[in-house]
Parts: sequence; C-alpha cells; structure tokens
Amino acid sequence: MRAVDIIQKKRDNFELTSEEISFLLDEYLEGNVPDYQMSSFLMAVYFNGMKKKELKTFTEKMMHSGDLIKFEGVNKFLIDKHSTGGVGDKTTIALAPIFASFDIGTAKLSGRGLGHTGGTIDKFESIKGFTFPETRDELVNMVNKTGIGLMGYSDKIVPLDKKLYSLRDVTATVPSIPLIASSIMSKKLAVYADGIILDVKVGSGAFMKTLKDATDLANTMLDIGDSFDRKVVAVLTDMDQPLGRAVGNTLEVIEAIETLKGNGPEEFTYLVETLAAVGLQVKGDVKTLEEGREKVWDMIKSGKPLEMLKGFIKEAGGNPGIVNDYSLLPTAKNKLEVKSDKTGHVSKIEAEMIGKSAMVLGAGRATKEDIIDHAVGLVLNKKIGDEIKEGELLATIYYNDDKNLNSSIKLLKEAYEISEKEIEKKDVILDIKSVNI
Amino acid sequence: MRAVDIIQKKRDNFELTSEEISFLLDEYLEGNVPDYQMSSFLMAVYFNGMKKKELKTFTEKMMHSGDLIKFEGVNKFLIDKHSTGGVGDKTTIALAPIFASFDIGTAKLSGRGLGHTGGTIDKFESIKGFTFPETRDELVNMVNKTGIGLMGYSDKIVPLDKKLYSLRDVTATVPSIPLIASSIMSKKLAVYADGIILDVKVGSGAFMKTLKDATDLANTMLDIGDSFDRKVVAVLTDMDQPLGRAVGNTLEVIEAIETLKGNGPEEFTYLVETLAAVGLQVKGDVKTLEEGREKVWDMIKSGKPLEMLKGFIKEAGGNPGIVNDYSLLPTAKNKLEVKSDKTGHVSKIEAEMIGKSAMVLGAGRATKEDIIDHAVGLVLNKKIGDEIKEGELLATIYYNDDKNLNSSIKLLKEAYEISEKEIEKKDVILDIKSVNI
Repeated sequence: MRAVDIIQKKRDNFELTSEEISFLLDEYLEGNVPDYQMSSFLMAVYFNGMKKKELKTFTEKMMHSGDLIKFEGVNKFLIDKHSTGGVGDKTTIALAPIFASFDIGTAKLSGRGLGHTGGTIDKFESIKGFTFPETRDELVNMVNKTGIGLMGYSDKIVPLDKKLYSLRDVTATVPSIPLIASSIMSKKLAVYADGIILDVKVGSGAFMKTLKDATDLANTMLDIGDSFDRKVVAVLTDMDQPLGRAVGNTLEVIEAIETLKGNGPEEFTYLVETLAAVGLQVKGDVKTLEEGREKVWDMIKSGKPLEMLKGFIKEAGGNPGIVNDYSLLPTAKNKLEVKSDKTGHVSKIEAEMIGKSAMVLGAGRATKEDIIDHAVGLVLNKKIGDEIKEGELLATIYYNDDKNLNSSIKLLKEAYEISEKEIEKKDVILDIKSVNI
Repeated sequence: MRAVDIIQKKRDNFELTSEEISFLLDEYLEGNVPDYQMSSFLMAVYFNGMKKKELKTFTEKMMHSGDLIKFEGVNKFLIDKHSTGGVGDKTTIALAPIFASFDIGTAKLSGRGLGHTGGTIDKFESIKGFTFPETRDELVNMVNKTGIGLMGYSDKIVPLDKKLYSLRDVTATVPSIPLIASSIMSKKLAVYADGIILDVKVGSGAFMKTLKDATDLANTMLDIGDSFDRKVVAVLTDMDQPLGRAVGNTLEVIEAIETLKGNGPEEFTYLVETLAAVGLQVKGDVKTLEEGREKVWDMIKSGKPLEMLKGFIKEAGGNPGIVNDYSLLPTAKNKLEVKSDKTGHVSKIEAEMIGKSAMVLGAGRATKEDIIDHAVGLVLNKKIGDEIKEGELLATIYYNDDKNLNSSIKLLKEAYEISEKEIEKKDVILDIKSVNI
C-alpha cells in the first residue's frame, strides 16, 4: 500500500477502505507518511468529503491514538455536553449543577482554547484557588463526590487530532465538515459518557455561519456517534448574537450563578433548561422536552443546583461563598457605560465583534502565551428585538487598563445595528436531532 | 502575506494576484514555504485550476527560476518541437534534418525520461561515439554547423519545475492540466526559439486519454505561449496505437532513417511531413499546409535531409556510415517472429502494453538507475485497420536476454485486438491550433 495511491483515490472521489485509512493514519502517526502527503490528502477530503464508513474508521483511528477515559467505579448516568463554541457561552457552568441535582454526572474534557474569552476551564479559574482534576482517578473521584467531572485536555487524549489540527491550521484545510466532525467526535468518544449532547452553534458568531452548514455538521457527528452505537443529541442553537448578556470570564460566572438563582437572561435560561431537559430524555427520566423543562425549572426553584455548584467549587478548592458575594471574584477597577446614539430597535449584534471588543480588554487569548484577565468584559443591556432610545444604556464595559478601551468601544458600537422598524426576538433553539435515544 | 491565505483563496476558487503567486513560489524556492503547504496548494489547483493571468505568472516564475538559453550568434529561424510523449515516438530524429534542409534550426532541450523506451537523447546514443552538447556555447556551435541543436536538460534549467514535479509525483497532483501546461511551457520558454511546435499526443498510449483533455491541455499551453507573445502551434496527434512500426532505440533510429529515404511507414511519414510543413508555415515560407507538405516531400526525395542527418551524426562524434549500414548500430542477438492466432482485422493495439513489452526486454528504464539496452525492441507488422490471417506475422521481437521474453510475448499478444468486421485506418493528425502565426 502506498500513500500516494490513497490520496489519488480520495482525489478521484472513490470510497477508501478501512485498511487504506488505517494505513494512512498509522503511518502518519509513525512519521512514515510525511506532512506533505497528509496535507494534500486533507485538501482532497476538503473537496470530496468522507462517507459514513470512512468517517467511522478515520474517527476510530483518531480516538485510539491516545488514552481512553473509562469511568469504572462511577454509579451515575454520565453526560458529556460539548459546544462548538461561540461568544458568551457559559452554559456548562449552569448546566452541570442542574444535571448533578438529577444525579446525572457530567463527564467532560474541556479546552482552554484561543479566542474572545477563555474556555469553561478558564471561566471557573476566575474563582481563586480553583483547580481541576489532572488524572483519570481524580476525575472519577470528583464525579463521585460532586456529580461534576470536568478536566482539561491533555496531550495523551487523541494526540493524532492535535497533530492533524496543527497541519490543517497552516494548509487551509480547517473548515471541512467531515474533518471538524471527526475531530470533535474522536475526543467525545475517547471519554466513555453514557450520552453525548452537542450544542452546535449557528450564526455570525459561530464557526458554522448557516443553518445548512450546521445541520450538515450535526448530521455528520450523529452519523459518527451512531456508528459507535452511542446515544447522541445535537441541539442547533442561535449564535447570531452573543449568548446571554455577559461576555468575559468573571462576568459569565456571575451570569451562570444568577441563572441558577432563577434570574438569568430569558434566552440563556431557556437554552439551559432545554439542554437539561434533553439530558433527562437521554437518561430516560422524561418522555417529552416540555415535561423535562418543567422538572428543570422546579429543580432550579428548589435551590438544589446552586448548592451542587457550591459543593463543586468547594471540592475544587475555591470559596463557595462567591455565589452570594460576587466581590470575592476578581473585579475590574473601572466601568464605562456606553449609550446609544440612536432610537429604534436592535436588529443585529455581530457576535464576533462583541467577542473582539472583550478580547482587546484582555478577556481572551490571541496567542497561546497570553494571560487572561478574568475580571474584564462586557455586559450587554440590549439584545436583538429590544427597543432602545437615544442616550439609553447599550452595554457596560468592565476594564482594568485603558490602553485598548477606545478600540473596545468602537467594536462594541459597530457590532450593534439599530433599525427603525420593529424586530422579532430570535429563537435560541433552532433544531434538535438525535441517534440511539 | 501568508501562504495559508493564498492556499485558502485558491481553495475557494478566487483568482490569485501576480504578487500572491510570486510570493508563494519565491518563498517555496527559498525553503520558507514548506512542502506541506505547497502540496495542499497543488491539490487545490488540481480541483480549481488556474486562470490565464495566474498561469502567466506561475509559468514566468518557473521559467526564471534558473538559466535561460538565448541564441545570440545564430542566424537561423529556430524551432523547438516538443512531444508530450508516447510509444514509438522517433519524430525528432526525422524532423530535425528536414528542418535543417530548409535552413530552420532545431533548438531543443530533451529529456532522457523514464518509460517504455528512452528519450530522443537515448535514441541518438544508440550510435556509437555520439555525444550531445553540454553548454550553451556548444549548443550554439552545433546549431550553426549542423542546423540541429539538441541538448539534455540540466538542473540549471527551470529547477523549480523539478522541485515541484518531485512533490506532485508523491502527492497525486500530477494530472492537473494547468500544472502540466506550465511545467512544459516553462521549459520551452526558457529556450528562446522563434517558434514552438507542440505535438500533443492523444489516446490510450498517451498521458491525455481523450481528445477533450488533449484539447484542454493544448489550449492551456497556447494561452501561456500567447501571454509571452510567442509563436506556438499545437498539433494533436493519435496515440491510440504506437507511432510507426518500430519500438526500441536502435530500431526507431533505423525507422527514422528509412523515413528520410522515403521508405517510412505511411502514417509516421505523414506526421513528419505535417510537422515539417507546420514549421515552414511558422517561419512564413508557405501559406498552406498542403503547399508545405509538397515542399517537404520534394525535399525528402532530393536526399538533402539524409545528408543533414549524416552531418549531424558526424559532428556529434558518430559514424555517419550507419545510415547506409545498420549493422554498425547495436544489434540484438536474437529475434522471434510472433504470429497471429486469429484471422480478421486489427481493431486495437494498446500502445501502453506494446511499450511495456519493449521495456521488459530492456528498451526503457523503470527506474532512473536502469541501463538501456539500445538494441532490443519490437517491430510491428500489423497496425489498426490491417487485415491479418491466422499464422501471419504480427510482430518481430528483437532481444538479447530471454529472461523476460515470455512476458514480452504475452504483453504483445494481449495488446492486439482482432475483430471479424472491417476496421478503418486511424487518422494520425487530429487537430491543429496556433497563436501568433
């Protein structure tokens, strides 16, 4: 078998056998197939895609390139919730304690990631003293004690994905749906949760700009999940504007806590309730989402999820008192209220610009080496569909250093579009699809 | 400027600027753009092609990556005739002396190449003592003295093509029409002939299997030639069966000499006459191809081309006596007459199999290191359209070593298809196209 023949076969749009895909990936991992052959293969995949059987082998080889995390010794139903990423996405912080209240364990590896704000790991690290498990045993211990098993990725999990991603990044082969789907799913499959919930973001602030592309990605991930007989649900959700109102690490932690107190922004609360209801369905506790959402809302009102979050924070080395006293969290020295120049209705908020507006203040990393300022960020006062009057508060900027304040303000203002005519509010849940449920 | 953005732009089918192509190729040649970026770029070109302006810059950068050969001090009209390659192609050996007879100089770099038989260089080297010029000055001297300037490629001519070709070869990006066209044309343009004649082979024994692909390639090469204001003619010719009857180095030299004596195979003679007539048209000596072919046939009958060939052989260090005494050429020890098992009409001769039948005897190189046996090969007694009776001679095999004789016979027999119904003879000239004539 020769790599060049496999590349040619993919280039000519023939289906590759398992043996061919295995050969290519094994030899690549061994260093016998060089980067220049893999990158031309990846470009051919960009153009011709991969069929379900090809994707199964491709994902399987990725998954088995490193350690697998199994949960022997855990007696909970485990869910791995993954988001494809967007601006203001603090969902896990609110969702995991709700799951824990229903005795559903969260089993999830999370990235720090580059971008507008940190990942879930960075957000929790806003809490002084907070540390994550570093080994499988610590993770299992954490799930057993708190119901919430969150850990950062290590180089030992799916190392082939890391190697391929570095190559894709410099060869313009990142935005290929089968490659994205197998990258995500290989990491989900390497962790043996009982159910996988994929929050697939759609819109200007997401990787998938259109519902069609997001649906393709969701279907491809479901196909992969199905070929491994896993229970998978894909929830397609709106990212045409930031999620909720807070963007920035501490600010997002606070918004998630407020949501557990029943005071969260309407559309973010609805998303959390829906994802929690999906979890109850996956576990088999409820028949319909409506039934699930009611149970979830009752649970939030009972106060138990907030207690579960406090237990998790305590176990992780943080001060659980932060949920009642936000001044215990890192706080920005200054704040600036940005007012509207116009009267009308908010018709658009470019999520990516809002993300950049927070990033230039220090909320996110532009390069791996950057240090995050947990305290800074934005809180939006107006979302799409809201009425606004000239001089009324658009958003508040929280900052420590005024070096990039002007560009932050400029990005914030440019992100907003205000129209004369009335605008409908956006639905946050666009579609739900599943396999093996 | 970043390579990854240029790859992405080509992937998304936008037209690249001259600056972008220049940046990519300059940095690649410098080693700053690695092979893994270039190979994904080449695969994107495979899928999306290149526009005329892009190809101009791409070819120009290739051409100027090494030395250029100009012919100061030569007072002849110079033609560079190039063939895209096929089985039994000894055209240059007959054509160059005819051109010389009309005071048209041949200015041509030629490859040794891998494949069924050697290149033109190898074929001439069947003649004992024959050596080619090695420098520009020796080449100019040869053109001035004999009218025939033939030289092997050196690493100094279009080194970027060599680097790119090695990469394409292992990344399944060889069969891309713009890449093939720019590879050929960069080498033609690096030699400053007054006219370029491209013999584009079409059929089972050629790189371009269909008239459509060959026409695309011809048009792309003409476009490139046009953007450099060069006179270029593309002659599309049949390669659905071997050219002429002889396949093998010495045997082909003999067939070319016989053609100059007026005894060549009908369709090979017609091809040589036509290409020579095209040369007269490019120079401006004749108005129509018919007029040109008549002049050429008269010239062949005059015996002058044979004298020009003798002069060339003498100047190159060989014995011109070989044109009258073929026993002075390397001769195979054994010959075997292969007879037909069937009565009917020859409907097909798979040129590639005939080539392999000669190659296994030692007529060509499978790897760069192989040494050619100039003496061995085949002479076909029957071509497409010929009637044949059971037991009648199909072809004669000339061989020294009987190690691969059986597989040579097997390939030869499998190459022939004999049908009951009558078959038309094939046209050798399929189409002629030109720019700036």
